[in-house]
Amino acid sequence: MNSHPRAVALLSGGLDSAVVLAIAREQGFDVHALTLDYGQRHVLEIDRARKIAARLGVARHMVQQIDMRAFGGSALTSGIAVPKDRRADEIAHGIPVTYVPARNTIFLSFALAWAEVLGASDIFIGVNALDYSGYPDCRPEFVEAFEKLANLATRAGVEGRQRFKVHAPLIRMTKAEIIRRGQELGVDFALTLSCYDPGPTGTPCGRCDACLLRARGFAEAGICDA
Amino acid sequence: MNSHPRAVALLSGGLDSAVVLAIAREQGFDVHALTLDYGQRHVLEIDRARKIAARLGVARHMVQQIDMRAFGGSALTSGIAVPKDRRADEIAHGIPVTYVPARNTIFLSFALAWAEVLGASDIFIGVNALDYSGYPDCRPEFVEAFEKLANLATRAGVEGRQRFKVHAPLIRMTKAEIIRRGQELGVDFALTLSCYDPGPTGTPCGRCDACLLRARGFAEAGICDA
Repeated sequence: MNSHPRAVALLSGGLDSAVVLAIAREQGFDVHALTLDYGQRHVLEIDRARKIAARLGVARHMVQQIDMRAFGGSALTSGIAVPKDRRADEIAHGIPVTYVPARNTIFLSFALAWAEVLGASDIFIGVNALDYSGYPDCRPEFVEAFEKLANLATRAGVEGRQRFKVHAPLIRMTKAEIIRRGQELGVDFALTLSCYDPGPTGTPCGRCDACLLRARGFAEAGICDA
Repeated sequence: MNSHPRAVALLSGGLDSAVVLAIAREQGFDVHALTLDYGQRHVLEIDRARKIAARLGVARHMVQQIDMRAFGGSALTSGIAVPKDRRADEIAHGIPVTYVPARNTIFLSFALAWAEVLGASDIFIGVNALDYSGYPDCRPEFVEAFEKLANLATRAGVEGRQRFKVHAPLIRMTKAEIIRRGQELGVDFALTLSCYDPGPTGTPCGRCDACLLRARGFAEAGICDA
């Protein structure tokens, strides 16, 4: 019999969500990891998510398939090229073509459905408002609005059995801070894949925004990326 | 070249969403119908949605598959029995076991993703707060909270290119009013399937809440259900 409260943590296979999962574990939650295979460019991410979930020790890991390619509108779900070699100020400015319409809204909706069935009040998501200032669904006001919605949308919320809380522990951290926190918690960064456009075996391109932000974060943290 | 503004309308194969689709068409929208095949008991509903979309004349009809059976927690997505022969006061009281956790949140999230890509500001959903007073995600406060979220969650909302509006034209109507409105708009009710537990060829059970509410609505409207 497990006496730890349950939580649902969204897990992408990237670095940020791996650190969030480790944080949820450290806070004493019985973590149920949820990965959305949404038709992104690199399905390798899903395999990494499975490995991270197994390594960090989750109660269960569910992979849900959805087809966001049918909508398109993003470099991650259509033929639009992933930008390469952008300067830090270019990355920080505006919403990049790697923005996926309504992605975090969809992800949190699935997490909410599972959380309600599990009797879990706590949902974890690895959004970050500093390095990805451009993504509208990575901002605190988005997270707050979803949390409010969650408590109106569900039987458990309305009946007061669960008071849903959306945890976004990385939201105001720099990449270097996230990496240091992950290291403290024993996250194996070698399992994580940040690249938007990896080679067929998962080799990072080293030139997309995600690779550049990751490299800068490790450099600032003074940690070697395995 | 189509000069009508685009809208996304959620279409289930039931009566309410068919009427909503007809309302959106009447209002002059170029309607993109979206059906979620979520693992509900009766996949017959999807076939009906296709027929309704074709008959009412939509710009496009997309069917997205998602697996809400993996979560369970509802009579519509698991082995829980669909209640039968309940009295009107029983149906009106409390949240029934046919409630599907976070279903309308997930549905609207998908509609939002497609709407953003289409450049459509208008999303239509056939929720109704009177006959289904128990479902938390059929209430006006839920619809308002989602609309607020939609404008925070998206590039189009944040950049002010689209101001998302969630239309729930049936929300305060009785079933009889919905049926009369559908009749005015030429909805072919014979194509719609309300039953939660139909026979293998789509014959309604006549005893579940949805069948009973439909029968009462037609009786009150003084219209014969084909």
